[in-house]
Amino acid sequence: MKHGGDLTEAIARHGGAPDDWLDLSTGINPSPWPIPARLPIDVWQRLPSRADEDALMAAARKAYGMPDGADVAAAAGTQMLIQWLPYLAAPGQVAVVGPTYGEHAVAWTKAGREVIAVTDLGEVPESAVHIVVVNPNNPDGRITGRAALMRAAARLKDRGGWLVLDEAFADVDPDISSVAMCTDLPVVILRSFGKFYGLAGLRLGFAIGTPDLIRRIAAALGPWPCSGPALHIGAAALRDQPWADRTRSVLTEEAGKLDKVLVKGGFTIVGGTSLFRLAGHPDALKLHGALARQHIWCRSFDWADGLLRFGLPPGDAGLDRLAAALALGH
Amino acid sequence: MKHGGDLTEAIARHGGAPDDWLDLSTGINPSPWPIPARLPIDVWQRLPSRADEDALMAAARKAYGMPDGADVAAAAGTQMLIQWLPYLAAPGQVAVVGPTYGEHAVAWTKAGREVIAVTDLGEVPESAVHIVVVNPNNPDGRITGRAALMRAAARLKDRGGWLVLDEAFADVDPDISSVAMCTDLPVVILRSFGKFYGLAGLRLGFAIGTPDLIRRIAAALGPWPCSGPALHIGAAALRDQPWADRTRSVLTEEAGKLDKVLVKGGFTIVGGTSLFRLAGHPDALKLHGALARQHIWCRSFDWADGLLRFGLPPGDAGLDRLAAALALGH
Repeated sequence: MKHGGDLTEAIARHGGAPDDWLDLSTGINPSPWPIPARLPIDVWQRLPSRADEDALMAAARKAYGMPDGADVAAAAGTQMLIQWLPYLAAPGQVAVVGPTYGEHAVAWTKAGREVIAVTDLGEVPESAVHIVVVNPNNPDGRITGRAALMRAAARLKDRGGWLVLDEAFADVDPDISSVAMCTDLPVVILRSFGKFYGLAGLRLGFAIGTPDLIRRIAAALGPWPCSGPALHIGAAALRDQPWADRTRSVLTEEAGKLDKVLVKGGFTIVGGTSLFRLAGHPDALKLHGALARQHIWCRSFDWADGLLRFGLPPGDAGLDRLAAALALGH
Repeated sequence: MKHGGDLTEAIARHGGAPDDWLDLSTGINPSPWPIPARLPIDVWQRLPSRADEDALMAAARKAYGMPDGADVAAAAGTQMLIQWLPYLAAPGQVAVVGPTYGEHAVAWTKAGREVIAVTDLGEVPESAVHIVVVNPNNPDGRITGRAALMRAAARLKDRGGWLVLDEAFADVDPDISSVAMCTDLPVVILRSFGKFYGLAGLRLGFAIGTPDLIRRIAAALGPWPCSGPALHIGAAALRDQPWADRTRSVLTEEAGKLDKVLVKGGFTIVGGTSLFRLAGHPDALKLHGALARQHIWCRSFDWADGLLRFGLPPGDAGLDRLAAALALGH
């Protein structure tokens, strides 16, 4: 499978209706920020105004702890920013530290760029003008330290290149974020709203960087890149610091429970973040099939036979269902 | 002012709260397709699935009368497609038939293209590789006939270029649409959902063209370009043929009422569609200011001192308020 979160293929192969499935194929928080029962009709009817956008940006600035010298642009999902970066960056090769989220390499390749796959920042060749690092990494949760990232960004500055830092899962631990680097180094930080806030269908993501860099991204996005509901809900959720703090604890607790079920099912926990767990098993692919036949969908990888990725189940019932399915074996 | 539909600037200059203002600066239907009181929580929480996207495409195919050989891609608003086209089209100059919606020229210029402004298809020089026509045109409502468009598209085919046909306001009269041309000519038709359906904040727009052309656009957009609510509401609204038929009549009626008020206020109706009216007055700019002081916002143009554009007021009370304001003069 190409992506988590799309049951279309799972249903085509194994039947069932979407509601029958326990979808653990994503890293999306199953307990979303509580959207209001009814949104103001305005957010649907009129074009988003500059005032709406400014309110979202102010909330993002605070939530992400942005320093004064940095700027931010919002888009209809981080993916849209991933699509644009290869068209806006200076010519040259891009090194992608992986294995990681596959769409970075796809987007640069489709835009005609040469992509170099490396497994560590230390392996990046001199010829690379840009580097993509997902931090914490998806699916293994590896965290690249700030000192190494700063060294890499400084080298790229000399080459006219960008360090693209995809912090899609950094909300689970704000200390991971490199947002403080954005004032003087050519770093583009991508922040995803939908994962931590559990509202992936809303489509909202951010690019953070120097004012000059963000101006170029915003010019490419053009006017009204975000929907009215995304601006309204995004601003309110990002302002809700108590919810975010509480959610970080809850996710850690839920990830711990999931680990217990997986270990009991014969898995070894290899890595992850509190929004998804990467687990190893000698019969991983067989188990993936066995779970799918019981309409439980997790993530497999074409580069590793022995690994599966599990998102958090929505509550203890989902956890029990997974435990029961794993007890049956393959 | 740069755009309709953004009261931020009007409020900064003339005060008032957004709700105090009668915003006639857009061409957005003030009586939107009735969105359900509550959307399925899924559309907010999970990533849109391929099945969701297929359902929207099928509805668009039918609503826009697409021929079998054509294909369609959806984006978070037509503006997003306008932003991408200059990056995807073959190298070369673009001729924009105007005066028209300003963002076409802006997008091509920002992408580094030479833009040639022409006032008629007949003026397009041999050197132009691409042509942009808004049909019906905004703000004057001019309709370019299909024969002329086909001739232009055939010429561009020889040059490897595209005819970009922005049909943002074609829903008011489906006979205007050139969608039938899309099977063998290099025509990119842009359809805007938000204007006719009165849901501009939803951000939903379409590109229609040959399968090869649409494949390139879809590849640039990447996965999940539209939000869950946009897919859900868009598909349901586009399937609602009775609403669309009724709305076409209602808009014609409302535009007629608006014309009467404008003519009584000393304007001459110069053009428009049933979603907006272009009206001439020797003191147009003074009247724009006088209306703004009464918190009525219409559209002025930097290329014409004597013209204002008015969208439809939301109901007779708005119409009466406009009539009273115009009776005061400037």
